[in-house]
Amino acid sequence: MCARPDAFNMSAMSLPPKTPSVGNGPRVETIPEGDDRARLMCPDCGFIHYENPKMIVGAVARWDDRILLCRRAIAPRLGYWTLPAGYLELNEAPEEGARREAWEEAYAKIEITSLLAVYDIPRLSQVQLIYRARLIDESVKPGAESQAVALFEWGEIPWSEIAFPTVRWALRHDRELGDTEIFTPRTNPQGETDLT
Amino acid sequence: MCARPDAFNMSAMSLPPKTPSVGNGPRVETIPEGDDRARLMCPDCGFIHYENPKMIVGAVARWDDRILLCRRAIAPRLGYWTLPAGYLELNEAPEEGARREAWEEAYAKIEITSLLAVYDIPRLSQVQLIYRARLIDESVKPGAESQAVALFEWGEIPWSEIAFPTVRWALRHDRELGDTEIFTPRTNPQGETDLT
Repeated sequence: MCARPDAFNMSAMSLPPKTPSVGNGPRVETIPEGDDRARLMCPDCGFIHYENPKMIVGAVARWDDRILLCRRAIAPRLGYWTLPAGYLELNEAPEEGARREAWEEAYAKIEITSLLAVYDIPRLSQVQLIYRARLIDESVKPGAESQAVALFEWGEIPWSEIAFPTVRWALRHDRELGDTEIFTPRTNPQGETDLT
Repeated sequence: MCARPDAFNMSAMSLPPKTPSVGNGPRVETIPEGDDRARLMCPDCGFIHYENPKMIVGAVARWDDRILLCRRAIAPRLGYWTLPAGYLELNEAPEEGARREAWEEAYAKIEITSLLAVYDIPRLSQVQLIYRARLIDESVKPGAESQAVALFEWGEIPWSEIAFPTVRWALRHDRELGDTEIFTPRTNPQGETDLT
């Protein structure tokens, strides 16, 4: 996860951040010429803020039967456990981003094996690409955004302290697939479209 | 494809559009507090422009053995053939976006069957989710951004007039998969990472 203060709190991203400067950035809704929907425009400088959904990339990374989880050192859901995951950055491929996040959050070197799931949270304009991966070695330690990192066997997973519904979905989907190597990536469980 | 003038020309999107107004929008590189990389900031109003890769959603949509292609009525690659595809919009799920694009570009009603491929073009900060789909009926006609739309058998595809490499990749991957229903989504063909 990048260190952006509102990371994973996408609801905060639908409006530009408040600033103490001369204006407040893009804040007037307008339909630009040649476009077909309203965008936020800055009346001070004319800048048009095209917003599109953001991508989260992450991994269910295993060492044998144990799965890497990270205890969040940042809001939201500080102190809760999550998969290593975060915003895809500019000029970055999704698998590359997932490897970077595992390193940043848990100093974990991972090898991606397949695309586990594509989850979407339309309410937050967020699409998550979650991969299956293997840890290249067992040595992990907390990165700047983690209070702790640990490898959990299935029976040890702290379900009541999981940070986000999509983390539960990914853990469950990974478990259901077992050793299956060729499969259709999972999507939001039915009836749980908008819980994150 | 949304009607944004620079649609599919993502190289134009790495900088904010020029405007005739008092300023020029976010244009000063700065590392915001709590962040770990430079973002563009507007010195006039303080707005920080967080940019992330954008997602393209589209479909290889079939009616029997024929595949829907659209002849572009907009730049770039005006007059060339493409799959119905475009930017995922805010609050939109990827499959929903792919259905919307098929309707906007070809008045095609489609039913998505599976995720064909995840292509990434890091140079353009673009990730494409391309689905396999069935046309619900045969009636298609050009939308505002298409000069023409047509259903092509494999042997009829105008390869020399295909708009983008990822369209060729998707057509080829769809062909290779044939009737296979359970498969790992395809990714960039090796050695062709950065051609779009």
